[in-house]
Parts: sequence; structure tokens; C-alpha cells
Amino acid sequence: MVRANTERALRDLYELREIGAYKTGVHRPTLSPEDMEARRWLASKLEEIGHSATIDGIANVFGRAPGNGPHVLAGSHIESQNHSGWLDGALGVVYALEAARAVAEDPSVNGSGVDVIAFSDEEGHFGQFLGSYSFLGELDEATIDESTDRSGRGSLRDNLANFGLDGKERVTMDPGRYKAFFEAHIEQGGRLEREDFTIGVVTSIVAIWQYHIIVEGAQNHAGTTTMAERRDAGKAMMQIWHRIEERFPELIDTHSVWTAGNVVLSPGGPSIIPGKAEMWFQFRDAEMPVLERMQDGLFEIVAQIDAEGPCSARVEPLGRSTPAKMDSEIQNALVDAAAEITPDRALVMPSGAGHDAQNMARHLPSAMMFVPSIGGISHHWTENTSDDDIKDGAAVFVDAIGKVLTQH
Amino acid sequence: MVRANTERALRDLYELREIGAYKTGVHRPTLSPEDMEARRWLASKLEEIGHSATIDGIANVFGRAPGNGPHVLAGSHIESQNHSGWLDGALGVVYALEAARAVAEDPSVNGSGVDVIAFSDEEGHFGQFLGSYSFLGELDEATIDESTDRSGRGSLRDNLANFGLDGKERVTMDPGRYKAFFEAHIEQGGRLEREDFTIGVVTSIVAIWQYHIIVEGAQNHAGTTTMAERRDAGKAMMQIWHRIEERFPELIDTHSVWTAGNVVLSPGGPSIIPGKAEMWFQFRDAEMPVLERMQDGLFEIVAQIDAEGPCSARVEPLGRSTPAKMDSEIQNALVDAAAEITPDRALVMPSGAGHDAQNMARHLPSAMMFVPSIGGISHHWTENTSDDDIKDGAAVFVDAIGKVLTQH
Repeated sequence: MVRANTERALRDLYELREIGAYKTGVHRPTLSPEDMEARRWLASKLEEIGHSATIDGIANVFGRAPGNGPHVLAGSHIESQNHSGWLDGALGVVYALEAARAVAEDPSVNGSGVDVIAFSDEEGHFGQFLGSYSFLGELDEATIDESTDRSGRGSLRDNLANFGLDGKERVTMDPGRYKAFFEAHIEQGGRLEREDFTIGVVTSIVAIWQYHIIVEGAQNHAGTTTMAERRDAGKAMMQIWHRIEERFPELIDTHSVWTAGNVVLSPGGPSIIPGKAEMWFQFRDAEMPVLERMQDGLFEIVAQIDAEGPCSARVEPLGRSTPAKMDSEIQNALVDAAAEITPDRALVMPSGAGHDAQNMARHLPSAMMFVPSIGGISHHWTENTSDDDIKDGAAVFVDAIGKVLTQH
Repeated sequence: MVRANTERALRDLYELREIGAYKTGVHRPTLSPEDMEARRWLASKLEEIGHSATIDGIANVFGRAPGNGPHVLAGSHIESQNHSGWLDGALGVVYALEAARAVAEDPSVNGSGVDVIAFSDEEGHFGQFLGSYSFLGELDEATIDESTDRSGRGSLRDNLANFGLDGKERVTMDPGRYKAFFEAHIEQGGRLEREDFTIGVVTSIVAIWQYHIIVEGAQNHAGTTTMAERRDAGKAMMQIWHRIEERFPELIDTHSVWTAGNVVLSPGGPSIIPGKAEMWFQFRDAEMPVLERMQDGLFEIVAQIDAEGPCSARVEPLGRSTPAKMDSEIQNALVDAAAEITPDRALVMPSGAGHDAQNMARHLPSAMMFVPSIGGISHHWTENTSDDDIKDGAAVFVDAIGKVLTQH
């Protein structure tokens, strides 16, 4: 059994928390000075244990372990959302670092190794999963050319160039090298805490299908235009929204979720009938037939409102990912490790949030592990997990990697 | 019969249109350089015909006619919405100017006069009807202190000071001086055009009751928060909106209108469940019992959603004006003038839009007259009225004022 030094892992997380500290959380957007400091911190920790570490041309931190025995790859992301929590992906990066150290120190797995990766920009400041796509050889230069920071910090190219990374070689994966990929993360939901579990073993990462719904009517004066002659785009959008909420419960499966995250009426004056209304709508599920049903329902509702008039309505898909199944054998390693270290405290569950593991799973047997989020809070500076849960999570994560490395 | 020089009135409107020209409309927000140029243009036109003209401490332009005979007051507003139409209130200001000139030139009404006023900020860049409230002695200094431009141009005080107006004396009305107040305006709706009329004689100006509806839920991750545990403020707001649209048709009268002009979900990210939702809602009618019914209905709906949970909901009234009845005798002067000049082409109708005449009507017998808006369009640079309708409107407006000045 490969044993984590859980105190050391916790100490590292507290050290990393100081870089870009914001209240009790951190502010480390991708390619900010604080983010680069965190990346250099990780690279130096990896070099201390004999890994060959690099920060590559997309800002992925990759540490290659020595040894000619079996290897696994482990990691997550080290940048944060703006003014956000201290754990999120940083937890998974430090767990991977601790796994690499524990394996390097354990003579029973001599020759084996854990390569460590911090994928760049999982948080989507510049794009979508740029780091894992790049590592998998699926990110072209044109996409990098087009990527800009959503908070107005300019182009990805300029931000890479600030740290001498633009044009630098991008490391790509040698898939034959690895038995598996492991990622740990905070849950970002309240289920583990509510149902009193310490470890979440992920079965699949749900797909997210996103849409932009647009209704066009006629902008007009809210006093002088009679109700009969109005073409109120806001009212028509409300009807779409209402039918979605009426209809979707019939279309879904147990874990399905759907969200109208934003609605914008234009021009938005109190005395002006909206001439245009937009909605950003998404739903998530782990099963393709369920996703297809929800999409069909959405398309039907929008087409109905368009046909009924007096406004025109259309829907544009913005992105449709594929549900990612985690590998059952690697899941079992996590389940077995949890059974030994935290008996009866592991829950097998889907992930409602997206993670780099969904990309890795297309190329390697992959697994994800969660620890509880206090109050279910994430992407906010109050995000937290108890020290005990952090330490238990590290022990289970490292033990599971040890099991996979020694399996034949 | 006092006759307008309708070609001269049209020429003035085309001249005024050049000040702050934007496409085929104008951009003359209150206290912009272009607005001040328009005010000075009017003051100078008034001085040319022997009026004593001033731009006062709230930027009202007031021209006092000579003579000891009967007087009426006429006017409207000269500033525009941002990037808006060329006519709107400017039409009423130029009609008032033409009435003053025609009366001054007509020996049959020797000694009579038309005082002319351009009320400041009817368009509400800084406040609500600041010019007419000031003229009626109903605007205190504290309100001026608190007023700021809604487009970010700073405080009213600073903007007044830019043109040396801050602290200048504000002209107030001598009610004993006037037999009546007359205001002309474009209709801002499509009814006159659609039903083929040239002149609208206003019976009453509807009241506008405005509300800010606030729903509070819990901001959360759109992937990891189950549907059951959500407190989605956006969804609860949609339910309020839907019930309003279901319920209001039972509460209203023929001319009632209601409008959800803006809805804002916070924080508005596509993957975040809205923790807060706000709506700016208003309705209008000319009858108090109808207004009261609509308000009761709104309060009941919001209280229901609050009681049903899981979000809290409340509604804050933002402003409730009183319906303003126009004076029937003065209305008749307009009806009679229209019958002579444009036979069978006058429609007696309520005004769905608010105007300074609603304030004036509390102090003087008041009347309003409309000319058609092509396509019902207003508050947009494409706003327009045919030259023939503009000239017919000027003739009717001036003749009606002549009738009132000579009535005993």
C-alpha cells in the first residue's frame, strides 16, 4: 500500500493558498502573475523529487517521473475563477504531487512513477479546456489565435507572450506510457456533505448542451401601443421559458438538470416594449438519449412560439459535449482504497460539472475522485473543505494510484 | 380667426432639426451643448417677436408676451431622448412659438398674448418632469441635489453649472395670468395613422404606475445542484411574469396597457443558477379604480410566489402618478378648430404617454393635441410626421388658442 503523507499534502495546499490570496480564497486567473507564480511553485516542487518539469506553450505544467516501470498520469488545474475558492482544481494538483512523492519514496513500487499535470485554463478564462485539448494534440494554432480573455485582459497570445510562452513547444501525451489518468477535485455540490460521505467516486461526467434562444418582436412605446398591436419579445420569451419548466420534468432522468442562466431584454427601458429578447439556456445529463429528448423538447417549444406569433423565435446550439464514462476498473481502485481508509464513507456518483478528465477519458482509462464542499459552495471565495476530509481524500487518492501501479 | 403661418412653422422645425442632427433624427439630451443651443435658438426667436425670454435655473426656456389682455400659456419640451426623433416635443414648442407670433401679428386679438415655455427634461435624463414641477413651484433643491444623468453624464448640478445655470433663479407660474395651457405633441402611437385621422384631441393623460419586483434565491452551480435543491430566482420571476400575463386581462379596461420593460438575472452566467432576479414593471390607465385593481393583482401574485417558495419575492412601487383629465371647454376649442380646418379628421382619445400637461392640468384648464406618428414610431431617429400633417396641426393649434383668447 502506497501511503500519502497527508500532513505534507495539507501543508502544500496552505502554501499554495498564499499565492494570489483573496479573502479566504484566491484570485489566480489563467496567465495572471499570481497564476504563473503558482505554476512555477508546482514545477519547482516536482523538480525537488526528480521529475523533469516544464511549463509549456499553453502554460500546462508537466512533470515527468523517472523510472522504467508502470506509470500513471495525475493532475487537475491550478488557476482559479476570478476571486474564487482556494481548493477547486488546486486540490487535485496537490494530490497528484503527493502521489508522485509517495510513489517515489515507496520501495515497493520501485521503477514506477506518477507524471503530474496542471492543465491550463480549465476555468475557461480564454477558452474551453485548452490545456487538456493541447496535451491530447487536439488544439490547433488557429484556436489559440482567436482566444481572448472573457474579463477583458486581451488575447491569449499576448498573455502567453507576457511570460515568454507564446510559440514555445506544447507537450503532447504519449498514451502508451500510462495505465490510467486520475483527477481529484472538490465536489462543487452539496451531496457528499448532505448524505454524510467523505469520498465521491465518479461514474461519468455529464455532457453540457448549451443554447442561445433569440426572440424578435417590435420595440415600441409602452404607453401608446395597445396590447393588441404589440409584438413584445420579452413576453414571448417568458412563454418559451414557462413551457420549458412545464415540459422538461416529463423528458428528464433522475440526475438531469436544466438552467436558464441569463435573459436579456433589449433595449431594457422601463417604458419601452422589448423588441428583442435573448436567453442562455443549458441542460446536462450523462446519457445521450436523455440529452436528445431534452433538445427535441426545446426545439419543439421554440418552434411553437415562433409559429404562434406575433414574434419570431429561434434557437442556436452553442456547444454539445459528449458524456464521459469513467473506467470501471480504475473506479474500483478508488472504491477499494476508500473501503480500507474511510470505510462506508464513499459514494458512487455522476459529476454534474465538467472536468479535464472528460477529455482524457477518450484516450486513457480515467477516474475522478471528489471530496465534500462545505455547504455545496464553489466558485466563490468562501468555498471550503474540512482539513480532515482533505487528508482522507489524499490518502484514498494515493492508495488507489498505488493499487493501479501494482495491478497486473 | 387667428391664422398660423404654417410654412413658417415647418421652416422653424427644419431649422431646429439641424441642431444636434443624428441620421434623420436628433441627439439633444438635456443640458448637452446641442440642447443648450436649441434653448438659445428658441429664446432668440421669442425675443424677435418682443417676448422677454429667459433660460432659468432648471433650464426652462420661458418667453413672456407683452400686452395686458388675456393670455394663454403654450409649450412642450425641446430636448430629446438619446439618438431619437426630430419632432417629439420640439413640434409642440414650435407650434407654441408660431401661436405667439400669429397672435402678436393679428390685430383682432390686440393686447392678448401667448407665453411660451420649453419645459426642461421632460425626457427624464435627470428626473421626472423637472421643468414643469419647477415652474409650478413643486421642485425643491434637495431633489435637484440628488438628480444624476441616467446615461452617466454626472449630476444635474454639475450639468447646470456647465452653462452657468446652477443657482440661477427659477421662474414660477403666475396662475392668474392664464386662461389655459396648451401642449401639442406627436402621438407616439399608430392610432391616428391607422384610423386615418390628422388631429388627436386628448381627453386625459393616463397615469403610469411603476414597480421594481425583486426575487431572491440562492446562487449556485448549474451542474452540481440538483433540481430539487435549487432556489432559482430566475424561474420564480418567470412564474410571476406568467401569472401577470394570465391574470391582467381580467383586471383591465379597454385602454389599459402593462409592460415588463426589463428583467435582470444575477449574476447572469450561463452555468450559474441565478441568485437574484429583478423586473421593472409598469401599467397605465386613465381611471383610478382600474389602476387600483391592477396593483392589487400584482401585489397578490408576488405575495403568492413568495408564500409558495423556495424564493422570496417582493415588490417596491417606484412611482404612481394620477390620471390627468384635460379641460372639456379647452378640448372643445381644439375640436371646433379641427372641424373648420380639417373636417372629420379629428379623433378624441386618451394619451397613453405622460406629458408636462398632466402637471399643468392640476393648476390650469389644460388641453393637448396630437398629430400622427408615421408607423407609430417614436423615441427613435426614424420618427416622422408628414409635412402636410405638421402644417394642419399648426393651423388647428393656433386657431384653438385664438378661440380661447377671444372667448368671454
